[in-house]
Amino acid sequence: MSDTLLKPVAAWRSFDGWVKRFEHRSEVLDCDMVFGVYLPPQAEQGPVPALWWLSGLTCTDENFLQKAGAQKLAAELGMALVCPDTSPRGTDLPGEHDDWDFGSGAGFYVNATREPWSRHYRMYDYVTRELPTLAESALPLDGRRSISGHSMGGHGALICALREPERWHSVSAFSPICHPSRCQWGIKAFSHYLGDDRNDWAEWDATQLVTHVDKQLPILIDQGGDDEFLGDQLKPGSLEQACICTHHPLEINLREGYDHSYYFVASFIDDHLRHHGRALGLG
Amino acid sequence: MSDTLLKPVAAWRSFDGWVKRFEHRSEVLDCDMVFGVYLPPQAEQGPVPALWWLSGLTCTDENFLQKAGAQKLAAELGMALVCPDTSPRGTDLPGEHDDWDFGSGAGFYVNATREPWSRHYRMYDYVTRELPTLAESALPLDGRRSISGHSMGGHGALICALREPERWHSVSAFSPICHPSRCQWGIKAFSHYLGDDRNDWAEWDATQLVTHVDKQLPILIDQGGDDEFLGDQLKPGSLEQACICTHHPLEINLREGYDHSYYFVASFIDDHLRHHGRALGLG
Repeated sequence: MSDTLLKPVAAWRSFDGWVKRFEHRSEVLDCDMVFGVYLPPQAEQGPVPALWWLSGLTCTDENFLQKAGAQKLAAELGMALVCPDTSPRGTDLPGEHDDWDFGSGAGFYVNATREPWSRHYRMYDYVTRELPTLAESALPLDGRRSISGHSMGGHGALICALREPERWHSVSAFSPICHPSRCQWGIKAFSHYLGDDRNDWAEWDATQLVTHVDKQLPILIDQGGDDEFLGDQLKPGSLEQACICTHHPLEINLREGYDHSYYFVASFIDDHLRHHGRALGLG
Repeated sequence: MSDTLLKPVAAWRSFDGWVKRFEHRSEVLDCDMVFGVYLPPQAEQGPVPALWWLSGLTCTDENFLQKAGAQKLAAELGMALVCPDTSPRGTDLPGEHDDWDFGSGAGFYVNATREPWSRHYRMYDYVTRELPTLAESALPLDGRRSISGHSMGGHGALICALREPERWHSVSAFSPICHPSRCQWGIKAFSHYLGDDRNDWAEWDATQLVTHVDKQLPILIDQGGDDEFLGDQLKPGSLEQACICTHHPLEINLREGYDHSYYFVASFIDDHLRHHGRALGLG
């Protein structure tokens, strides 16, 4: 595959490496997409491993690279950062742009099975198949991948690692939606994307997936203690209980006083980069 | 002065300290203003010194605290960060909101002398007098101040330190507008704010101010080598020449490949924090 499939949108020098944005045609999503990447200085010598970051509701490929302050340590470790967008773009399905917690900006990293969403909203295949293949062919990435994310993207990171642990070296999450089948955001999204049979939701719900995984990747979670969404939407206690029952390794750091913002993510992102760096053989 | 003059707008925990935004009535600007501050964890024990950051065209009090990644080292050093807005707000003067490089978001940190701007656009007095007095009365700031900024805010930092060096412990700038009397942005702004007599502009132009200062504060500048505004608007060479002629201490770091963005600022902000930390007796 040639890098001509990637159309450069922008490039900024950052900590002796590059933040770049690329546009490309997604066959899986049947639309044009943009993603962001940080290539550390080591990528000029040869391919490097990557942390894949999945962002939350209303975000794009840009929030993490602008606000998390991750590039400094990524440059030291020699770790790329790959940031997909949070939903298909440029489409105009009925009601797609009406709500901030559903449709555009809110793909929930599932493969939709219900019309009209199934035509485009196949974000799981996009972030685990199509985009890795494309990015690793066109950019100096060596195919070693870890995954993390925030909120809806934390849910995304968890389900990626629990569904196909062989594809990732490590997993972590900030403020993840841990049990989407049992919270308002998840129920709304899953009803539309997957239909009303809740049995079909289990394969996209971290708390349910964790009970039957082939390979246990230790989960690292940071969660703000003053996060306004903690009790109603995120429910880390449900995941914790499921992990205890199935002896799945889990570390949850409850950070007193912190909320759901990127100020929180930035405060602890270095801990997560080091976690992934160790698994990827860096630093 | 009581902190009841400051109305809390928002607060986020950040690196064991707090990012906070406050609204207040500005008598100098005759309007309501919002500013941002980072209080490091040391501020819970007692007052700390502060780096004042002046932002560039189109920015607000938020850009720096969201994008520069400065809080981590500020927390280590015990340095507060104070971020004023870039112009009066909530006013509606003729043409004030028409251009991105003039009027709202573009106060240029001068005291306007021409109607209608002189009614509100007195940003120099605001950032050097009114806001320091207010912030240091209401917040745990000990009155030691250094100053920095980006682009138009770099110009602001330079003129603050050159006009009244006794008010600041140290000065630095990223990509500053070094000679506003001789670039399009500056000529447009100064013509409106100060009138057409260019003799009146000299006291707001770093390259002219540097030739007659009472006390020489060493100037640290970082400038991107691929900054699209470098030659036409920023003109660091003019300031450099003036500093050579008058033996004013100046260090300009030209950073090859870097542009005008906050990705650039973030890449080198720690160098500037350490520069100011030394002058403030920290770290």
